[in-house]
Amino acid sequence: MAKYSVGIDYGSLSGRAVLVEIGTGRELASAVYDYPHAVMDEQLPDGTKLGVDWALQDPQDYLDVLAHTVPVLLQETGVDPVDVVGIGTDFTACTVLPVKKDGTPLCFLPEFKNNPNAYVKLWKHHAAQDKANHINEIAAFMGEKWPARYGGKISSEWEFPKLWQILDEAPEVYDAMDYFVEAADWIIWQLTGVQTRNSCTAGYKGIWSKREGYPSEAFFRALDPRLEHVIADKMSCPVTPLGRKAGELTPAMAEITGLKAGTAVAIGNVDAHVTIPAVKIDSEGKMLGIMGTSTCHVLLGKEEKTVPGMCGVVEDGIMPGFFGYEAGQSCVGDHFAWFVENCVPAAYLEAARKAGQDIQAYLSGLASRLAPGESGLVALDWWNGNRSVLVDVDLTGLMLGMTLATKPEEMYRALVEATAYGTRKIIETFNRSGVPIHEFYASGGISQKNPMAMQIYADVINLPVRIAGSEQGPALGSAIFGAVAAGKAAGGYDDVFQAARDMGNLKDIVYTPNPQSAAVYDKLYAEYDLLHEYFGRGGNDAMKRLKAIRVAVKKAKQ
Amino acid sequence: MAKYSVGIDYGSLSGRAVLVEIGTGRELASAVYDYPHAVMDEQLPDGTKLGVDWALQDPQDYLDVLAHTVPVLLQETGVDPVDVVGIGTDFTACTVLPVKKDGTPLCFLPEFKNNPNAYVKLWKHHAAQDKANHINEIAAFMGEKWPARYGGKISSEWEFPKLWQILDEAPEVYDAMDYFVEAADWIIWQLTGVQTRNSCTAGYKGIWSKREGYPSEAFFRALDPRLEHVIADKMSCPVTPLGRKAGELTPAMAEITGLKAGTAVAIGNVDAHVTIPAVKIDSEGKMLGIMGTSTCHVLLGKEEKTVPGMCGVVEDGIMPGFFGYEAGQSCVGDHFAWFVENCVPAAYLEAARKAGQDIQAYLSGLASRLAPGESGLVALDWWNGNRSVLVDVDLTGLMLGMTLATKPEEMYRALVEATAYGTRKIIETFNRSGVPIHEFYASGGISQKNPMAMQIYADVINLPVRIAGSEQGPALGSAIFGAVAAGKAAGGYDDVFQAARDMGNLKDIVYTPNPQSAAVYDKLYAEYDLLHEYFGRGGNDAMKRLKAIRVAVKKAKQ
Repeated sequence: MAKYSVGIDYGSLSGRAVLVEIGTGRELASAVYDYPHAVMDEQLPDGTKLGVDWALQDPQDYLDVLAHTVPVLLQETGVDPVDVVGIGTDFTACTVLPVKKDGTPLCFLPEFKNNPNAYVKLWKHHAAQDKANHINEIAAFMGEKWPARYGGKISSEWEFPKLWQILDEAPEVYDAMDYFVEAADWIIWQLTGVQTRNSCTAGYKGIWSKREGYPSEAFFRALDPRLEHVIADKMSCPVTPLGRKAGELTPAMAEITGLKAGTAVAIGNVDAHVTIPAVKIDSEGKMLGIMGTSTCHVLLGKEEKTVPGMCGVVEDGIMPGFFGYEAGQSCVGDHFAWFVENCVPAAYLEAARKAGQDIQAYLSGLASRLAPGESGLVALDWWNGNRSVLVDVDLTGLMLGMTLATKPEEMYRALVEATAYGTRKIIETFNRSGVPIHEFYASGGISQKNPMAMQIYADVINLPVRIAGSEQGPALGSAIFGAVAAGKAAGGYDDVFQAARDMGNLKDIVYTPNPQSAAVYDKLYAEYDLLHEYFGRGGNDAMKRLKAIRVAVKKAKQ
Repeated sequence: MAKYSVGIDYGSLSGRAVLVEIGTGRELASAVYDYPHAVMDEQLPDGTKLGVDWALQDPQDYLDVLAHTVPVLLQETGVDPVDVVGIGTDFTACTVLPVKKDGTPLCFLPEFKNNPNAYVKLWKHHAAQDKANHINEIAAFMGEKWPARYGGKISSEWEFPKLWQILDEAPEVYDAMDYFVEAADWIIWQLTGVQTRNSCTAGYKGIWSKREGYPSEAFFRALDPRLEHVIADKMSCPVTPLGRKAGELTPAMAEITGLKAGTAVAIGNVDAHVTIPAVKIDSEGKMLGIMGTSTCHVLLGKEEKTVPGMCGVVEDGIMPGFFGYEAGQSCVGDHFAWFVENCVPAAYLEAARKAGQDIQAYLSGLASRLAPGESGLVALDWWNGNRSVLVDVDLTGLMLGMTLATKPEEMYRALVEATAYGTRKIIETFNRSGVPIHEFYASGGISQKNPMAMQIYADVINLPVRIAGSEQGPALGSAIFGAVAAGKAAGGYDDVFQAARDMGNLKDIVYTPNPQSAAVYDKLYAEYDLLHEYFGRGGNDAMKRLKAIRVAVKKAKQ
């Protein structure tokens, strides 16, 4: 009798659930629910205004996803809830909220309903940049060792900058919260009634490591005396490695979802990282790029190495027993979307319409007829700063080589190539730091929709590129972890690696490097590299100076 | 009784004549005639194929301009031909043709009708680049002094590369020609029956100088033994300074034009240079930019100085008694046209249509609301190489500072600013070389149509910018020289400077620098300058390497 697992992927604007057959990874059904509150970045529902760079969510939306998707899966497939033996979830991160001892979000309480700091701070809430800067400066000043695990710096998106912002701006919220939790762990708490903390978000966003724990009280005291005991006060919950069972579905949640009370629930997880088993990765040397508006690179390693400019290395952070490495590019699909929005002439839109193609497919069609090097263009993929390996939000874009004969499809291709060069830079940095990479895997929208981009990636990085077989990589990954939480005795797995091999899914196509193209791209990458180092490492800080002028001019204009 | 002068401006695709009142400069009428053969760049009328980079014209078209425009002026105004006392002309240059002793173009002879090398080689005939390279190399090797007058190098557009090409490819044409003449001088020969050579084209395109003459026979022998006596053989006509009378209208030409036989005709001239008196410039320190698809900068100086990267310095080359300096930017209006063609989204076109504006006016409207520095962008204006001060056709474009928030009007403005920075670079180079510039004058389409661009120029170069009062600057300038050819006794002028002051024409508006904007542009120009030096002088030859890769890839693809 077949057994099943439910995987639930919480994205930035919606949650998606899939019902997966254990053993085969076959996806029987999927359902999506858009968050009614979406992202609140201008005001709360009651009209309370938010500041610049704020991004909040309402946790009720996360609960509503459960009610609106899981029952649909059961209805559509007719699967007996008895045969659904595991549940896994993944979330955006760092997406965090203050809660009471019983898990109630502060924003659910009448006294905090109109207090922005009581809500979920979404990953892209960037209003705590000054806190992140202080943390990085003080860590450097005190000679803290932990920054080495994070490429040297932490981001304003992470837990402590966001928590410190609450303390500073809304001490009443800080005082009233018993815990500051990742939404990834909060949803598990809601499903099981048990609080847990997963090693992925704790490691990548909470400055925790299996061997060192959190930063010291002395460090937190140096930030702000009121933060000295922050771990004991607000985060006193042990960290559990990925691959474990968090608990079992409560009767209340069974009611809501239609699943059976007592169903095994996996420890919380993160959307990018959870995709590793969904593409059958079970060992080191295989980098996965989750390519959407931005790209997140994840990778397993046997040892902890310091890799300049990576986002983090976390033991048990992706798969148990491995060091999980993460790096990223802050602008990938966003580049192409910007280009299409701002730089494509009417004649091209008209031609695409006549060809019955969307404009990106049309541009890709034209661009794919160009040979590497034919455009004479090279670009730096920094329209949204550089996450890895420079970790510098103040860098901006560059394109070089235009002539009066330059065509839109050439610039479009140059932007695609630029993102591939950025990935090569990351791969080379890992290789040089003792974390060798032999293969590249791609998931996410671009991997599914843009074969030209994938061939360019293969040629630029000179490695075979394998493509995720599922369009719902994170949800499939979550279902795999759900099957592992269930355990073999219940029809699942005791071992996530075996589960990945059985249930993970790759397309048949492998993009292999064309040696001629790779040789030309070696030359073009050398140009990218030269510009990358010159503009990215202080040779010419034009981008920063221009940005500073821009900010000053905009301020003076107001 | 009012007297009149006719000015005729021979452009790349048409000739335009204006009838101007002497003393006031008032333009009474104007008429245009498109050359029936336009530019022949693929084949001759009989189907004979042309090579890559060829650009020919048929001199019959120049004669037809006379027949189709001058009579119209007289008809429209009712002016009595007796009162038209002078004729002046200007031409594109270097636009040259081989002729017989009596001035008959070789291409008029049946035996040469199908021989491309017998036709007029238009200024933008670029098929003699190898000859120009040889001339520059051999001049450097022999330590010739004359290259200093031309910023170090001559262009493939000039007389001797074009003549050498004929000798090499069509020795029968070389042997059959008695003279190799600029079209500027040929049309005067046709009008007057007398051969003359003007000091402008001889100096700027023929490597002639008032003090040194032409390069030596030894130099020409080093190029090719057959060229040793080229000056005596093919160019044996004395050079006459601008401002002189070349001769008088022949009865045959009087018949064609409706003017009176015996009317004074001025020495030939060049379109850019002839515009100087049309904007009242009568002394040094006042740079005129003729801003169209490209910009030509002309300037009077009291001494001969070596200015790196200028196009040339020629005594009597613009106004008699002065050293005329010329510099240029190879891509100005072409930048904006490229942008509009390739980078403007449909929504902007639609909005421009609704506003009843042409797209450049619409973009300028949006861009003019931006403050200097607000876009965060800086560009290098090298989409078509760099003429001055780098003299390098292999340089290409660059834009830096783009973010996901960058809008088309910001990029458009950045391109306008880049051309202004390019002009500032030229001005600073002149200033540093002992040829100081105090004021800037602008003529040509952009000066008339784009007030935003003109204000940006004023702010960037931090000088007042005066605008040509006539939209037909060159034709007006020619008419001024026509009035001087007539002489005071006949109702004209004896002195071109007085004629310029009386008949030249400036708009009332003067664009004056805004000190705040100028201060920001000082900072932005510093960024331009840094990039200009880095990419333009060997710090990073990415542009050349990318171009070389591009050429190789395109070849391999064929």
